[in-house]
Amino acid sequence: MTDAQKIRDAVSRSSGRFLGHLEQACAIPSVGTEGQGIEMIAWLENRLVELGATVSRLSVPGSPVAILGEFAGTDPGRTLMIYDHYDVQPVDPLNLWLSPPFEPTIRDGKLFARGAADNKGDLVARLCALEVFRELNGELPFTVKFLIEGEEEAGSVYFERICQAFAEQLKADDCVWEGGWMDLDGRPEMYYGCKGLLYVELRCRAISGDQHSSIAVYAPSAPWRLLRAINSFTDDDGNVVIDGFHDKIVPPGPRESELIERIPFNEQAMLKRLGIAEFNRGLTGPALTHALLYSPTANIDGFETGYTVPGGQKTVLPAEAMAKVDFRLVPDQDGTEIAGLVRKHLKDRGFGDIEVSVLSHENPSRSPLDSTLGRAAEAAAAEWFKDRVTIYPYMWATGPMFPIAQGLGIPICSPPGVGRPDSNLHAPNEHVHVADFYDIIGYTVAYLEEYGRTEPS
Amino acid sequence: MTDAQKIRDAVSRSSGRFLGHLEQACAIPSVGTEGQGIEMIAWLENRLVELGATVSRLSVPGSPVAILGEFAGTDPGRTLMIYDHYDVQPVDPLNLWLSPPFEPTIRDGKLFARGAADNKGDLVARLCALEVFRELNGELPFTVKFLIEGEEEAGSVYFERICQAFAEQLKADDCVWEGGWMDLDGRPEMYYGCKGLLYVELRCRAISGDQHSSIAVYAPSAPWRLLRAINSFTDDDGNVVIDGFHDKIVPPGPRESELIERIPFNEQAMLKRLGIAEFNRGLTGPALTHALLYSPTANIDGFETGYTVPGGQKTVLPAEAMAKVDFRLVPDQDGTEIAGLVRKHLKDRGFGDIEVSVLSHENPSRSPLDSTLGRAAEAAAAEWFKDRVTIYPYMWATGPMFPIAQGLGIPICSPPGVGRPDSNLHAPNEHVHVADFYDIIGYTVAYLEEYGRTEPS
Repeated sequence: MTDAQKIRDAVSRSSGRFLGHLEQACAIPSVGTEGQGIEMIAWLENRLVELGATVSRLSVPGSPVAILGEFAGTDPGRTLMIYDHYDVQPVDPLNLWLSPPFEPTIRDGKLFARGAADNKGDLVARLCALEVFRELNGELPFTVKFLIEGEEEAGSVYFERICQAFAEQLKADDCVWEGGWMDLDGRPEMYYGCKGLLYVELRCRAISGDQHSSIAVYAPSAPWRLLRAINSFTDDDGNVVIDGFHDKIVPPGPRESELIERIPFNEQAMLKRLGIAEFNRGLTGPALTHALLYSPTANIDGFETGYTVPGGQKTVLPAEAMAKVDFRLVPDQDGTEIAGLVRKHLKDRGFGDIEVSVLSHENPSRSPLDSTLGRAAEAAAAEWFKDRVTIYPYMWATGPMFPIAQGLGIPICSPPGVGRPDSNLHAPNEHVHVADFYDIIGYTVAYLEEYGRTEPS
Repeated sequence: MTDAQKIRDAVSRSSGRFLGHLEQACAIPSVGTEGQGIEMIAWLENRLVELGATVSRLSVPGSPVAILGEFAGTDPGRTLMIYDHYDVQPVDPLNLWLSPPFEPTIRDGKLFARGAADNKGDLVARLCALEVFRELNGELPFTVKFLIEGEEEAGSVYFERICQAFAEQLKADDCVWEGGWMDLDGRPEMYYGCKGLLYVELRCRAISGDQHSSIAVYAPSAPWRLLRAINSFTDDDGNVVIDGFHDKIVPPGPRESELIERIPFNEQAMLKRLGIAEFNRGLTGPALTHALLYSPTANIDGFETGYTVPGGQKTVLPAEAMAKVDFRLVPDQDGTEIAGLVRKHLKDRGFGDIEVSVLSHENPSRSPLDSTLGRAAEAAAAEWFKDRVTIYPYMWATGPMFPIAQGLGIPICSPPGVGRPDSNLHAPNEHVHVADFYDIIGYTVAYLEEYGRTEPS
């Protein structure tokens, strides 16, 4: 194993150029839901070809392009996939950005730009790490496949179909996922799985058009109907009470429970950040982290109906109401099945007229905690980060891991990455600490080396 | 009494000019809640002065201006007040208007414009009727006081204070209210009272800022809290279940019940218009009209939280949620008391953090069914409309009658006016039938004549 200092020195020698790559990538708008991406695809293809990769564009009818960049290794029998995405979140509200979202700007040692943390920072760091690895070690001992998709922020609607259609090209032994975050105390985190997500838009149309509210006494109300329908999804504690919703949930195993017990969670810092006195249902300690990882939720992302000008008055019986609800799912809940249960629930409770549009669903995913990549990433992290790493069996957020981990049977591990809780992911003024970017390039080199040396599971 | 045909002929001779007045009035934006109105006040003052009135502006600190236009009559001992309002409802959703809301447009014999029916149509018709009355009869036998306020659509927050402050100037024997509608079969309606209204804006702020929805498992949700709080206001049938809410309700007396039984309500036409198969709780027949007049309601006028772009996805735990709710009140519920009960209800059920802003409250109001004006308007209507008039003891909608009927002790009657159920009051494409406008000018002349002849109660 190359000495950590040697890796740091090598990163340092190219630091200006590496930061330049990140700035270039972040200067390209690639808001997936707004149909951007072409320029970013070209930039990535260029970068991959310059580094010596064979590049393909993967797509299925209607899908954005996913990019596959393959670097052949000396051992044809071993392949490591690296998953990232080139699309970024929308930039609104634009007026809250201190510098334009696609004009990367450095302030106080941080690079501000949409996508800097999610996920161009990790993506570019990994491309840079590949260079450093080869500078220090010569040829790659194993094949590396970069799989970079373009609709992660939009729920990866087509990603499963792409994985199925190109299963042969996507064969691999392990898969590196988007990087884990650092926690509020600067401890890096890594994950072996993620929650699932079902995102639905609910629409109720009760009468043919808006009416004077005096007739609310005899005409049905879309707002009331939708409100009651949504309210029926949970009990007063927020537990989902849809029939069959919990049937397929598999509780964590002993190793997972052990890891959960060890997860540090700075409750005071989080309470302060949220401006609240206590968590829901008085959650604290291991019960809190357990709930975070293993409790499904029903969350109202948005609700809109009628007249909403602050301070204004309009006495209207609105004809329509719309809401967005996301269900965070846990193993082995299935997004499609849950969507069916939601529809059945509404029908059974007399809300069959409420239209349910499934905007996306991603299944929860678990990977073995003792995969080759996992052991390598943990060993490298223990040395690189001086034992400050937190291992999550499973991530509280959602990513499209299922098509790879369960669909293609490739174990996933998400090693520490460039994000921090205050990186403003999905928010104005997204940023990474430049020092974190360099640190993660170095750590990536370290675990790639360790992976080459680790006996396959 | 002037022969109806003579009245019609007189209206007909000035019809182009009268329609021009209505178009002028409707071309002036006067959305009260958006602070418009100055231009409309000037137009009205001009019109009143041209007609020979003494004009005053009435206001109290913070209030919009109400206009008092006084036409002296030959008998100083008799005064008829005519109440209307110059403000109109907001125009949104603007994209559903077929012609711009403040560019009056005639299509199919209808004049389309915001305010055409509510209430500029009646107001202008009455000003025109005054002209015709004098053309046919010479001087007014009694004093006419036009009281035209500017915040009716915003709940007449200051109107009671204005009535109290100018009680002396506002003395009158009877008060003509905004015009009654025609029903779906074209039968004119008249009213002697109205429901009350309490309009509140509810706001919940659960956390300091929007968050990634993965933390919904432990962080409180403003949308859920507000939704549950509102849901607790009613049972599944829509009956308000706030403690004490029903305590002061006085059932209708025998004469009122008799009138309610006689109210024709074209249920099939209304069902068709609303696009529904049946009314709430299976209401039909006298039970339906009884509920319309004597059942209080809680209606959701608007609800807004989080991300609401149709078809879009953002997994967010919104920090805030806002809703507008109106409670229609019946005699002798009191708006201020009910606001207190709403606050207490929320506090008692653990929703004390939800901020309740009372945007307006108007008490329900009843007037005697045998007032001088009532007898005159009914007699004139029986002749003018050929006995097709429906007499409501009490109106399902709300107006600021309480400060005049109960506060100043002036009996109110709302004779037939220009509106129809499909006039799109408070909605896009508000309109009046031009023929109705002329008809109501004529009928107004007829009841003004009848009022002069009727023995005071």
